[in-house]
Amino acid sequence: MGHWAWENNFGSPVLLIVNMAIAPWRSYLASALKKNRTQPHSRYFQLATVRSDGTPANRTVVFRGFLEDSNKLKIITDARSQKITEIYIRQWGEICWYFTNSREQFRIAGNIIVIDANYENSQLQRARELTWQELSDNARIQFAWAHPGKPRANPEAFSPPQPDENKPLDNFCLLLFEPVKVDYLRLRGEPQNRTLYVLDEKGIWDVVEVNP
Amino acid sequence: MGHWAWENNFGSPVLLIVNMAIAPWRSYLASALKKNRTQPHSRYFQLATVRSDGTPANRTVVFRGFLEDSNKLKIITDARSQKITEIYIRQWGEICWYFTNSREQFRIAGNIIVIDANYENSQLQRARELTWQELSDNARIQFAWAHPGKPRANPEAFSPPQPDENKPLDNFCLLLFEPVKVDYLRLRGEPQNRTLYVLDEKGIWDVVEVNP
Repeated sequence: MGHWAWENNFGSPVLLIVNMAIAPWRSYLASALKKNRTQPHSRYFQLATVRSDGTPANRTVVFRGFLEDSNKLKIITDARSQKITEIYIRQWGEICWYFTNSREQFRIAGNIIVIDANYENSQLQRARELTWQELSDNARIQFAWAHPGKPRANPEAFSPPQPDENKPLDNFCLLLFEPVKVDYLRLRGEPQNRTLYVLDEKGIWDVVEVNP
Repeated sequence: MGHWAWENNFGSPVLLIVNMAIAPWRSYLASALKKNRTQPHSRYFQLATVRSDGTPANRTVVFRGFLEDSNKLKIITDARSQKITEIYIRQWGEICWYFTNSREQFRIAGNIIVIDANYENSQLQRARELTWQELSDNARIQFAWAHPGKPRANPEAFSPPQPDENKPLDNFCLLLFEPVKVDYLRLRGEPQNRTLYVLDEKGIWDVVEVNP
């Protein structure tokens, strides 16, 4: 979707980042994922949303990669979970992603799109299907378990038949998290380094170094 | 502050938890801290609050222990930081504390009290002082650094004289996080186990096992 354009106005090549290009903070995130790749928890982050009563909610979720060539992070959830109710009301969240090995933190604010079974866009329904197909059997079967958050069900409610690996269950939702602001902190360094990336209305990322 | 009472109504000892006693989820948290103690990041958690515009904020902070015999978690922050502005408006937050080694998550919701330099309570001012004294020199000097979040200052702004180790700088704040709800998830286990603890108006913790 994004592309890079080269211009020659000044006699030398100038790199322009065009709307929807890979965001400039992505290379640092990719590097952090690489540096911390031996730790499975490096793909977990904390997602904060706001409840209908105005209080914050915060939980650990798993990073499922980016949507194709976009900057949208993929997260999965159950339509029966509390967070879906919250996100339908306020499509906004803040991710806090701390890499324990390299001591880097990405705070990522942005809006959240819920791709549920009824979402009318064939391309995004296809993305939902692909995400389902990429899950392990173990991850898929949890969508057939008893209703999350309700009083503990009998053991039988946790041993359903294995769902179809090609067709997502109706309660399987893909969340697309579209960043508009990234606060990147590196704790190694004396003093620490901190960079803010803010997406402007033209789709350009403004970058500024700030005090930690 | 809390105490345990034994009664003999049924011919055998019955344990009653009296108002302000150590909360029942504390032993699981203590055990998680012990199991993960080789990892310094096991004392970090993510604190979500709500900004004045109603969007969530989320960042990693360090657990500084409990206030004396209470269930209040201690966190420190800089009066110049963004989160202080948020917390003065809405004294509420949600902690997400994930233990990477033992694969346990504590989601802790509660209200937040800011003990700043002007807070009028000598006992809590004493707690603020003690917390300052327990910091490393390295942690203390950061409160004398340039204003957090402002455009990057010159290197000199990050090499101030070492502050007095006994007397907190004016911008040093102690946050007291008072839990009212804890959602405790253990990912190990098939299916996973999840327990909700909710503080009722009498100060008693209701405990219920729920579906993961």
